[in-house]
Amino acid sequence: LISTALTRQFQLTHPIVLAPMGAISGGKLAAAVCNAGGLGLLGGGYGDADWVRRELAEVKAGTRRPWGIGFITWSLTAPVLEVALADTPHAVMLSFGDPRPHAPRIKASGARLICQVQDLEGARIARDCGADFIVAQGTEAGGHGASRATLPLVPAVVDLVAPIPVIAAGGIADGRGLAAALMLGAAGALLGTRFYATHEALGSPNAKRAIAAANGGQTLRTRVFDVVRKFPWPEVNTGRAIRNTFTDRWHGREGALGAALETESAKYWEANAKGDVGTSVVWAGEAIDLIREVEPAAEIVTRIGTDAARLLRAGARLLET
Amino acid sequence: LISTALTRQFQLTHPIVLAPMGAISGGKLAAAVCNAGGLGLLGGGYGDADWVRRELAEVKAGTRRPWGIGFITWSLTAPVLEVALADTPHAVMLSFGDPRPHAPRIKASGARLICQVQDLEGARIARDCGADFIVAQGTEAGGHGASRATLPLVPAVVDLVAPIPVIAAGGIADGRGLAAALMLGAAGALLGTRFYATHEALGSPNAKRAIAAANGGQTLRTRVFDVVRKFPWPEVNTGRAIRNTFTDRWHGREGALGAALETESAKYWEANAKGDVGTSVVWAGEAIDLIREVEPAAEIVTRIGTDAARLLRAGARLLET
Repeated sequence: LISTALTRQFQLTHPIVLAPMGAISGGKLAAAVCNAGGLGLLGGGYGDADWVRRELAEVKAGTRRPWGIGFITWSLTAPVLEVALADTPHAVMLSFGDPRPHAPRIKASGARLICQVQDLEGARIARDCGADFIVAQGTEAGGHGASRATLPLVPAVVDLVAPIPVIAAGGIADGRGLAAALMLGAAGALLGTRFYATHEALGSPNAKRAIAAANGGQTLRTRVFDVVRKFPWPEVNTGRAIRNTFTDRWHGREGALGAALETESAKYWEANAKGDVGTSVVWAGEAIDLIREVEPAAEIVTRIGTDAARLLRAGARLLET
Repeated sequence: LISTALTRQFQLTHPIVLAPMGAISGGKLAAAVCNAGGLGLLGGGYGDADWVRRELAEVKAGTRRPWGIGFITWSLTAPVLEVALADTPHAVMLSFGDPRPHAPRIKASGARLICQVQDLEGARIARDCGADFIVAQGTEAGGHGASRATLPLVPAVVDLVAPIPVIAAGGIADGRGLAAALMLGAAGALLGTRFYATHEALGSPNAKRAIAAANGGQTLRTRVFDVVRKFPWPEVNTGRAIRNTFTDRWHGREGALGAALETESAKYWEANAKGDVGTSVVWAGEAIDLIREVEPAAEIVTRIGTDAARLLRAGARLLET
């Protein structure tokens, strides 16, 4: 088994973190990842206090191991953060936006502060506000992100923020990706899409099936789902999703979509409620080529961790003596 | 030292391939990479017969080790291919476009056929036309490429084309990237930008200095340099370059640039002749964060190969016993 700064901090069996996917990474999924020896992070998303309270109770009921929660930084309010901190998470992750307003409170609570960044400027800010771990997220990730790719971004962030441990995110869905992340200097990997396609994930069965069926060439980064849902994301943070009839119609025509919101938003939410993934968003990263079925989360944690360990052993055997 | 299907095929000391960068990877650079124990590929580019003849003579004068040559497939003609084959290269690499018209002739010559691909459909074609090695090139690469990222693309291609060995390209500039590529299942790595910033590379000193000075966030994928140079690239194959005043002015305004070619092309080539990298293109990948100086090619080959070997050894030591 692999030992890194990440596994030692949270007493993990495997250096694997569940991405706090909003509305997907609920308490059941987070607890399952924790119980299998990874670090489960609840997907606090935009900070709906009722959702957060309910899923906090679920994760605490489901595991006695270290767990955490993540938020979209620009959407997080102090009261919602207090709801989370009251349940004493071992880690709080902030992504997208300036972490400095919330960093001191999180650190003071005793939780480890994890900041997810998409470029070197973000890494510098995370380092300077006291992040205990920095997630370097590449453009191949599912959901919101930016433009830099994981493979060159991770070592550049490692060099910039040393000795703060870095976690690689984006494009990782199997033991090969985790082993590669460790070679890049990361202390582990954060996986979203791979855990979306689990029995424990929230989200519609249709969405999970779509992830298992599609391939990486069918994803794109787009703003159309944020436009139609009226979420004020910064323009730089597009979201990677599986192409569908909605992206075919609106991607590249965001202005026209913005002008048609009165009818399009209602139609969108109606499709969403029905689990119609032809219209509704299925966030997914490029690594879906490597995802072929919906599985229990524990099997994924164990397989990826043990595969990566085996690859590290085999890698040393590539060396001629 | 690392032993893979790539090192065994070409008797390499390190599983490192010089990308055949058009007008950059000349005979001196290719020979230097070969002599240091990597595989040097001449940058045959668009297939200028005079350039090819001159640089073939240079590489043959410079090394007695296996070497090769690469071409832009859609631009390659049978006569230019014959010029190259007459000098009995050990490998011919084809990138961008359908390799099938040239594959049988290359295979019949005794050279190994290397096909570079950017997606799974390209990998399928390369496999089916008899490629001996398949380069999976991610979007973070410098110069021409497409949209898939290296980290998730490489294992997907490995799975698709097995047992054909795969070489990773895009975003790799140090031993960490090479070691990561091996963990992903690749037999080695192909590096362009890192070798552009060498004393032996053709290309202006200003361009090399720009690569050493810039960071990965300053690159973009664009068509503007192909529009102004009137090269008929497929729209999907954008080129990654360092942002400059030319991209600031024209990127996103390709139609307007196309309409202004009568004056803009002349101005562009004038700037290019003067080594003015404010206007002229400097192809570069996102891994330029990891490139801080212009160095001799041999030092790069040796350092990356030995660093990767050290990391593989250290990776096995991450395992708790």
